[in-house]
Amino acid sequence: MRIAVLGGDGFVGWPTTLHLSNLGHDVAVVDNLSRRWIDAELGVQSLTPMDSIQERLRTWKEVSGRTLAFEHMDVACEYERLKAWLCDWRPEAVVHLAEQRAAPYSMKSDRHKTYTVSNNVNATHNLLNALVASGTDAHVVHIGTMGVYGYSTVGASIPEGYLNVEIALDDGGKVAREILHPTDAGSIYHMTKCLDQLLFAFYAKNDGLRITDLHQGIVWGTHTTQTRRHEQLVNRFDYDGDYGTVLNRFLIQAALDHPLTVHGTGGQMRAFIHIQDSVRCTEIALANAPATGERTKIFNQVTEVHRVRDLAALVSRLTGVEVAFLPNPRKEAPENELSVRRDQFVGLGLEPTTLKDGLLTELVDVARKFVHRVDRTRIPSRSAWTREIAPSLVTNVEHDGPLRRRNGSAS
Amino acid sequence: MRIAVLGGDGFVGWPTTLHLSNLGHDVAVVDNLSRRWIDAELGVQSLTPMDSIQERLRTWKEVSGRTLAFEHMDVACEYERLKAWLCDWRPEAVVHLAEQRAAPYSMKSDRHKTYTVSNNVNATHNLLNALVASGTDAHVVHIGTMGVYGYSTVGASIPEGYLNVEIALDDGGKVAREILHPTDAGSIYHMTKCLDQLLFAFYAKNDGLRITDLHQGIVWGTHTTQTRRHEQLVNRFDYDGDYGTVLNRFLIQAALDHPLTVHGTGGQMRAFIHIQDSVRCTEIALANAPATGERTKIFNQVTEVHRVRDLAALVSRLTGVEVAFLPNPRKEAPENELSVRRDQFVGLGLEPTTLKDGLLTELVDVARKFVHRVDRTRIPSRSAWTREIAPSLVTNVEHDGPLRRRNGSAS
Repeated sequence: MRIAVLGGDGFVGWPTTLHLSNLGHDVAVVDNLSRRWIDAELGVQSLTPMDSIQERLRTWKEVSGRTLAFEHMDVACEYERLKAWLCDWRPEAVVHLAEQRAAPYSMKSDRHKTYTVSNNVNATHNLLNALVASGTDAHVVHIGTMGVYGYSTVGASIPEGYLNVEIALDDGGKVAREILHPTDAGSIYHMTKCLDQLLFAFYAKNDGLRITDLHQGIVWGTHTTQTRRHEQLVNRFDYDGDYGTVLNRFLIQAALDHPLTVHGTGGQMRAFIHIQDSVRCTEIALANAPATGERTKIFNQVTEVHRVRDLAALVSRLTGVEVAFLPNPRKEAPENELSVRRDQFVGLGLEPTTLKDGLLTELVDVARKFVHRVDRTRIPSRSAWTREIAPSLVTNVEHDGPLRRRNGSAS
Repeated sequence: MRIAVLGGDGFVGWPTTLHLSNLGHDVAVVDNLSRRWIDAELGVQSLTPMDSIQERLRTWKEVSGRTLAFEHMDVACEYERLKAWLCDWRPEAVVHLAEQRAAPYSMKSDRHKTYTVSNNVNATHNLLNALVASGTDAHVVHIGTMGVYGYSTVGASIPEGYLNVEIALDDGGKVAREILHPTDAGSIYHMTKCLDQLLFAFYAKNDGLRITDLHQGIVWGTHTTQTRRHEQLVNRFDYDGDYGTVLNRFLIQAALDHPLTVHGTGGQMRAFIHIQDSVRCTEIALANAPATGERTKIFNQVTEVHRVRDLAALVSRLTGVEVAFLPNPRKEAPENELSVRRDQFVGLGLEPTTLKDGLLTELVDVARKFVHRVDRTRIPSRSAWTREIAPSLVTNVEHDGPLRRRNGSAS
């Protein structure tokens, strides 16, 4: 199959690209390299040493014998080029990851909010619009987020995209309807993924586009089978306050023998999936496209759920490092319940890597191995969700003071 | 009150501006004059002769003694200017009409789809973002559309923005919840208003913005009490296939003694409101702002519902002109039921102008008065909703052939 991976240079996009190429698909990476520009803006870098995309492609060719196409293009800003490229390259499927994907980055300032909304909405809409205009009948697989549902479950497991409800009729009766699950975005980033859903619903209905939306949990892990094949194929590992997930920051803090910092009570329950399972899910989704005229197919791409404080406890048990509690920069409930339906991927053969089994490998192979590259000042999150919350972050114990003391060295 | 009207040069924006100014408010018009540019692009013009915005403001000053501020600004593209202007002008309320508002225009081509999405989403988001960033505590009154609900009612009247549903729990019980009404957009334009709703929900929740969203029906009528005060204050009247509403096109066809062209069976049921009632609704909404921290307040801004073929019959009875049926360019159900709750505005004192009472005035004072200015070739809609529908429009009987024959003159 001819597959375009939009955002194929990113954290999920890169291992997805290699996974699909290894399966024998013809894969093109389309990327504006924005994730590298954002590294430059923030003054951060991947913990793992990352080569240029061109060098990565050369390495992959050497290791696998397979060629990857690369198109340096901004799909949010270059609509006409995108349309022409689709006419030329004729993909049969498009994996869409061309969106700014960090909630804290999206809340950093008004400029970052504007960028995230404009980039993400225009990227998604340009893709759908260009597919119709160019007459490209490609299956779109979009990587969305569990965050579209919000985290306020009511005693009902979160279904896969659609919710059965009963509505009262004017005549006193009731009618059952299946609706797109109501959204409750926790950040500007998450909101853009809620907007995406409505774009998908429209284009599936009006133009018969075939679309799958994967509501993914927090992705953890660095290596996949394919990225392990050469050290220059290594995936990125972000640990900074904007792009680093809660788990990555715990691992780095543990490697530094710094307390594991939990925001709020740590009662927030979140959904997780390993990067190897993430790329496998995309493979499964590609093999199970909806029919033309069918509504958007939605999967919950999640393998387990945990409370943040339980994750901290797990890492603490593995490493002996203690846990510290800090103010929460996010506007959210301190505690929530989360139960997620995930029957579809399980039914289609997904066999998950669990945190219990994979976390030690991640600690040894990544966090401890590259700990000398850590910039300690970049670990804390400095994005406050509102003006009222901002002052509480100034005295954040994660600031480099305690780090220096614990490690006995000036950074 | 200091009020900014974004889009104050448009069809609803202009009479809204005059109405609020006449009530004694300090009003600033913020507009990029895009509606005039689109006239130029399409080669169409308002049936009523429209002066420049500067001339209109001068006339209003002369007639009323009141000054209107004017800022020529593109709120979708000039975020930093918008923020600086808010800091400087400090509005207490913002009426937001700065969006591309024609469904057929939004479906004209891929370029028009891109423009509509980018313009409307960025305009709304820039406004909300800039209010937060500038610390402006202004009540936002947004003119939305009934089209967010879709037109597939299930035997239940459309509530005002929020829907009560029952959800099954994992333990076999049920729970009642009030959710934002599910959306089902009929065009790219309507879809952008669905996206707006999610932007409002987020900013109301996260930043405590006070927002009212008016889900307006199809606006008809041209004059309001204030626009009647001088002929140079006249409101625009669009009759072209993109911006002309179904009713305006009927009126022009009647004035030309051309058959009233109904698309499909005319079984589509639509909601209507007179422009005088529209501006009065905005006045009422401004006087009833939600509290800080309250969710978006949503009103259905509608006074009556009719089937398109019944409207045609009404105009036919008034004028003796016959009705003709044509293929439908839209992808929609041929017939639908529509029942709309509108208790809130009625409860707050709105006294509607009905079609039955106002239509003859509109025919005499506008359509017949200015019929010599009609460009007959511009009446039919040439925007097809899908590639499959497009060929059916080519043989459209509305094309100028029959018009020439009926009127006995070459155009």
